[in-house]
Amino acid sequence: MKKVINNPEAVVHEMIEGMVQAYPDKLRHLEGTTVIVRADAPVPGKVAVISGGGSGHEPSHAGYVGRGMLDAAVAGEVFTSPTPDQIYEGMKAIDSGNGVLMVIKNYTGDVMNFEMAAELAEAEGIKVAKVIVNDDVAVENSTFTTGRRGIAGTVFVHKIAGAKAEKGGSLEEVEAVANKVISHVKSMGIALTPCTIPAVGKPGFEISEEEMEVGMGIHGEPGIERTKVKTSHEIAELLVEKVLAEHQLTAEDKVAVLINGLGATPLMELFIFNKDVSEILAKKGVQVYKTFVGEYMTSIEMAGLSLSILKLDDELTELLEAPADTAAWK
Amino acid sequence: MKKVINNPEAVVHEMIEGMVQAYPDKLRHLEGTTVIVRADAPVPGKVAVISGGGSGHEPSHAGYVGRGMLDAAVAGEVFTSPTPDQIYEGMKAIDSGNGVLMVIKNYTGDVMNFEMAAELAEAEGIKVAKVIVNDDVAVENSTFTTGRRGIAGTVFVHKIAGAKAEKGGSLEEVEAVANKVISHVKSMGIALTPCTIPAVGKPGFEISEEEMEVGMGIHGEPGIERTKVKTSHEIAELLVEKVLAEHQLTAEDKVAVLINGLGATPLMELFIFNKDVSEILAKKGVQVYKTFVGEYMTSIEMAGLSLSILKLDDELTELLEAPADTAAWK
Repeated sequence: MKKVINNPEAVVHEMIEGMVQAYPDKLRHLEGTTVIVRADAPVPGKVAVISGGGSGHEPSHAGYVGRGMLDAAVAGEVFTSPTPDQIYEGMKAIDSGNGVLMVIKNYTGDVMNFEMAAELAEAEGIKVAKVIVNDDVAVENSTFTTGRRGIAGTVFVHKIAGAKAEKGGSLEEVEAVANKVISHVKSMGIALTPCTIPAVGKPGFEISEEEMEVGMGIHGEPGIERTKVKTSHEIAELLVEKVLAEHQLTAEDKVAVLINGLGATPLMELFIFNKDVSEILAKKGVQVYKTFVGEYMTSIEMAGLSLSILKLDDELTELLEAPADTAAWK
Repeated sequence: MKKVINNPEAVVHEMIEGMVQAYPDKLRHLEGTTVIVRADAPVPGKVAVISGGGSGHEPSHAGYVGRGMLDAAVAGEVFTSPTPDQIYEGMKAIDSGNGVLMVIKNYTGDVMNFEMAAELAEAEGIKVAKVIVNDDVAVENSTFTTGRRGIAGTVFVHKIAGAKAEKGGSLEEVEAVANKVISHVKSMGIALTPCTIPAVGKPGFEISEEEMEVGMGIHGEPGIERTKVKTSHEIAELLVEKVLAEHQLTAEDKVAVLINGLGATPLMELFIFNKDVSEILAKKGVQVYKTFVGEYMTSIEMAGLSLSILKLDDELTELLEAPADTAAWK
């Protein structure tokens, strides 16, 4: 295992320190916790939005903390759900009396721990709503998950729910628009290589030099098939087909496209893949309103990528375009 | 070789297509060339800034094309200088009659080809100035280079010279501030793994599972030593010492810090490294004004990182903070 780290057991705490030191104008670390909040939290009069999950998906989730997106991100150990007490600490630090929306990726541990934190918060009089993101269309159930997994499409939920909260939406309104994004975004990915959890020290699975995994999860969960490495164009055809099959798009609809690198995929390859996706969508008559290419939700140093397609309407477009001031959104 | 590509010989052209398709509001491809220009080029009344070099360093250089930074980026084949005719095409497309500044990384091929392009442009009446970036303090001469190499510190030159041009600076003023940045920025990196040029199909060098290369160049050029893999803190001590030795910093000076990932290094590790760099700089009494962490100048999928430290003054700080609208600067 070759990594730029100090102690494999301390990676999450050291990462949090280094992140807050990089962006002191945007981020604040709640001492004694693994929670990063907006530097100016709690924001008076505003509904707060919290997310989080296991670490190893950077820039998710703390990279999206800041004005116009998340109020707090709670980091678990690598690929491990954050504990309820940590989530609860985050909620207390960001609630201004207007309530807290939890954005949870659909993994059994995350859902359970966020729900326990919600109970703790509600017992203290904090209004809580929660949404569960399940954008990965690859498989119906999986390791760690009942139902579909939440992957890179989650970042659209952060952006749009965060913008709605920033504009003064009520807890019910912010929850409603978050649920609209969830129903409008579908994703799927492929992986070329595994990744190594620092404290484990060896790759999470093995895959031969000639093979790729189609539909793999962001923790290395199995996908739908292992095939010979395909070309970018073949991968694009496969993923676009799977993702569009879940959408009912008309000729008037516009979409946002997110091409997400999983950690070790060069930007060069993400752009080549975007060329192929763009060509295929154009042939199918799908109107792309905006494209995002980069690392948004990674799997440590996994090589691979995912495609997310968000069906837009006027409300979602306006909120997607609203300003945000975070380390990682652009 | 596992890559998301189609034809190894066509990666640069396909990448350019995918990039322009992702950011049509910011970027325009000069058809028949490997040049990307600002969508609104030429900008009347403004000095134009052009850069470029071999591909494989994405988001450099086209990721910095846009308002407030570069007017054009010229892409060579992977790790290969762009040809003079391509650079010349870029210059013609962006010159508004106010002249063009070339920002060249110090590699023999780049310097030669940019100089030949300058002669072609001057023969057509275009005013040309050029600056050569040599921020890598690791070695004095190297494969492909006489003198020090240009690496990630180049991005500060793009940002600050671009801002000066955007504010209406003359060609001489833009050149002068670019040279000030070059004299004020020093960098050095380490590599844990090699990278593979698609058309070559195998890694550019070999390095054992226990070793790292100190001072390696962004094309895999040899550094100053090969050692056992060090901890993040040890790497930070080594790089900070080498880089600060080139600066004359007083207690009043402020610096900008750029922690640059080389392609496959997880953001988690870059933030851990930033924690160590921040601690060491604080102990030395160096005031960090602003920190940038991410992938700015990569080496395809090399694992490793570089540290750049830019000594600021009021002029550089103001230009660093000026708005820019590009795909990759943030």
